[in-house]
Amino acid sequence: MTMPADLADEPDTPYLLIDDAVLRRNIDTLADWAAEQGLQVRPHAKTHKCAQVARRQLDAGAAGLSVATLGEAEAFAEAGFTELFIAYPLWLSPAKTARLRALAGRLPPHALRIGVDSAAGARQLARGLGEAAVDILVEVDSGMHRSGVAPAEAGAVAAAARDAGLTVIGVFTFPGHGYGPGDARESAAREEMASLAQAAESLRMHGIEPVVVSGGSSPTVALAARAGADDTLRPGAVLTEIRPGVYPFNDAQQLELGACHWPDLALVAVATVVSTVAGDRQSGPQLILDAGSKVLGADRPGWATGFGRLPDYPQARLTALSEHHATVRFPRGAVAPGLGEQVRVVPNHVCTAVNLADELLVETTGGRTRWPIIARGANR
Amino acid sequence: MTMPADLADEPDTPYLLIDDAVLRRNIDTLADWAAEQGLQVRPHAKTHKCAQVARRQLDAGAAGLSVATLGEAEAFAEAGFTELFIAYPLWLSPAKTARLRALAGRLPPHALRIGVDSAAGARQLARGLGEAAVDILVEVDSGMHRSGVAPAEAGAVAAAARDAGLTVIGVFTFPGHGYGPGDARESAAREEMASLAQAAESLRMHGIEPVVVSGGSSPTVALAARAGADDTLRPGAVLTEIRPGVYPFNDAQQLELGACHWPDLALVAVATVVSTVAGDRQSGPQLILDAGSKVLGADRPGWATGFGRLPDYPQARLTALSEHHATVRFPRGAVAPGLGEQVRVVPNHVCTAVNLADELLVETTGGRTRWPIIARGANR
Repeated sequence: MTMPADLADEPDTPYLLIDDAVLRRNIDTLADWAAEQGLQVRPHAKTHKCAQVARRQLDAGAAGLSVATLGEAEAFAEAGFTELFIAYPLWLSPAKTARLRALAGRLPPHALRIGVDSAAGARQLARGLGEAAVDILVEVDSGMHRSGVAPAEAGAVAAAARDAGLTVIGVFTFPGHGYGPGDARESAAREEMASLAQAAESLRMHGIEPVVVSGGSSPTVALAARAGADDTLRPGAVLTEIRPGVYPFNDAQQLELGACHWPDLALVAVATVVSTVAGDRQSGPQLILDAGSKVLGADRPGWATGFGRLPDYPQARLTALSEHHATVRFPRGAVAPGLGEQVRVVPNHVCTAVNLADELLVETTGGRTRWPIIARGANR
Repeated sequence: MTMPADLADEPDTPYLLIDDAVLRRNIDTLADWAAEQGLQVRPHAKTHKCAQVARRQLDAGAAGLSVATLGEAEAFAEAGFTELFIAYPLWLSPAKTARLRALAGRLPPHALRIGVDSAAGARQLARGLGEAAVDILVEVDSGMHRSGVAPAEAGAVAAAARDAGLTVIGVFTFPGHGYGPGDARESAAREEMASLAQAAESLRMHGIEPVVVSGGSSPTVALAARAGADDTLRPGAVLTEIRPGVYPFNDAQQLELGACHWPDLALVAVATVVSTVAGDRQSGPQLILDAGSKVLGADRPGWATGFGRLPDYPQARLTALSEHHATVRFPRGAVAPGLGEQVRVVPNHVCTAVNLADELLVETTGGRTRWPIIARGANR
């Protein structure tokens, strides 16, 4: 990725910029690996909320999209996408019941999939859906302890869903506890597969064949795809489908976890140095960028080295983030950009950064273009 | 604040809900105290980005609005507000130069104020502004070490601005380092006043009378306004103006800092319990709410007890936040809300939560209404 040559034509900073060549390569690399493993890909669209990125993913062979909310499903259905998995234990208010029925009605039968993680949730969903033909996956807790039933209880939840009149097609999990340093990724990947295998067996014991066994976060998928990875980490034996989200763009978290490398970063925020004066009173250069938490998002896990990274200054760290200020510190003696210069910033967590913007500026071989973030704010 | 009686008419969760009576009381209390102290109030509109809240503030006597970006200034000018202070060291790209001139042109002469924190920034601003009649305030670092010139150097920056043709009317600071536990607020408030006094003197030494001396974050103002506060913390002797942002709504940060109390919280996110199943495997009740970081924001300073608070369950803590999941833990033996119940959540940092939403639902004595967040996303 190169900096824009002609800044006069640029949008005002801060804005989000995509390198389309890197985006395509990230999508294709994952697609090729999944095909080789016999895995379907149903990428999580909460990362990009963007029809053009989703189209690239489907063109590369993705079976459909995962989404987190009814609102995201509505936005992608409106954009013409039909195979949608709401990977979330929806609880239907009267208004959401009406929205869900309308959504199911505009999609082909069984093109819509929904997660459940309790018998009560399944029964409530069945009442809300009425005659709508959707498929159900039981969410399993593979160690993150967020939503999801214990693997051994997946069959009982599936049976309750079936008895309430729903069509249960399988199980899914999100191994979010793989977002951590050291061997967190590897142990999460192993737990993911063990939990899903156990959950699938639990369904079979209740007479339900799990046609879909779905897992796969970007970090655990990247680990499995790594050249020379331990064969026991290859998910094909257990999983039929993966749902990575971040991989088209990557971000500073993936970089610092070792799940991607600098050339794999497809999205940056372009920011301007607006102040350098406090740096005069520090041990190394310090500057202030105009991209703060309302542009980059405020995600900062304990293991991260800061609030984001600068690809052109790998030694620099974002040590503090206000709403409209990023404080960037450089090692003593380092050459830092000057007042008014533009700087590229990789956000820690690209999903929350994208949700803060209305559009992406995209650098393609054919020139610049803008992609709207169609599901921006569609978080309910 | 009471929960909605008729949920069938409610928007789908998660959504932001305002108690207008609390909002009015918070605005009036601050206004009365400031009037008593002889201080002008120029509230920071980055908190609410909402014309109706701004109007309440002006009706209560505010002299104008502070904003963080040119985009926020444009949004409020469009809504009819004329006295605007961009409390930020703008760096003007060609596009921003055109926008700033257009903005200045639609406002009365000298109704627009802008911050600078360096001679280079002042000269660049003067070139960009051309003939536009705006007023300049020099930003001073009072200990946060973000933007802002050292107090003793404020006069030199002011003189550079004057020599570049700008009208310098004073100094300002943001004592953001007062967001901390223990005596952080008190020491930040003292530094704020000492720094501004020194900066004002520095301007006088360069022959510039500081007509405006502006400070005041919500925590330091709340400290000064506290019954029985040490007289040395009363800002009237040094400051002419305060710019608190959060005080109309308050939030979990202000609560945990002791800058407000539970009855002062005017804004909550209303969320639904979507999963309780992982709680079965914990030592106390645990549940998952559908309000995650894309609704509440991900701000979590080290001293905070979690990612937000529940007014109806003060012992509960938001121990983890994903994009669409808040994990809430309760003490062993506590009675927690059940699956499908709605729960009120106070975000840690209300400014970032509001920026994620398109509108506020407002509970007034005359019924419910909706206020658009007109500067949502106007972050450049």
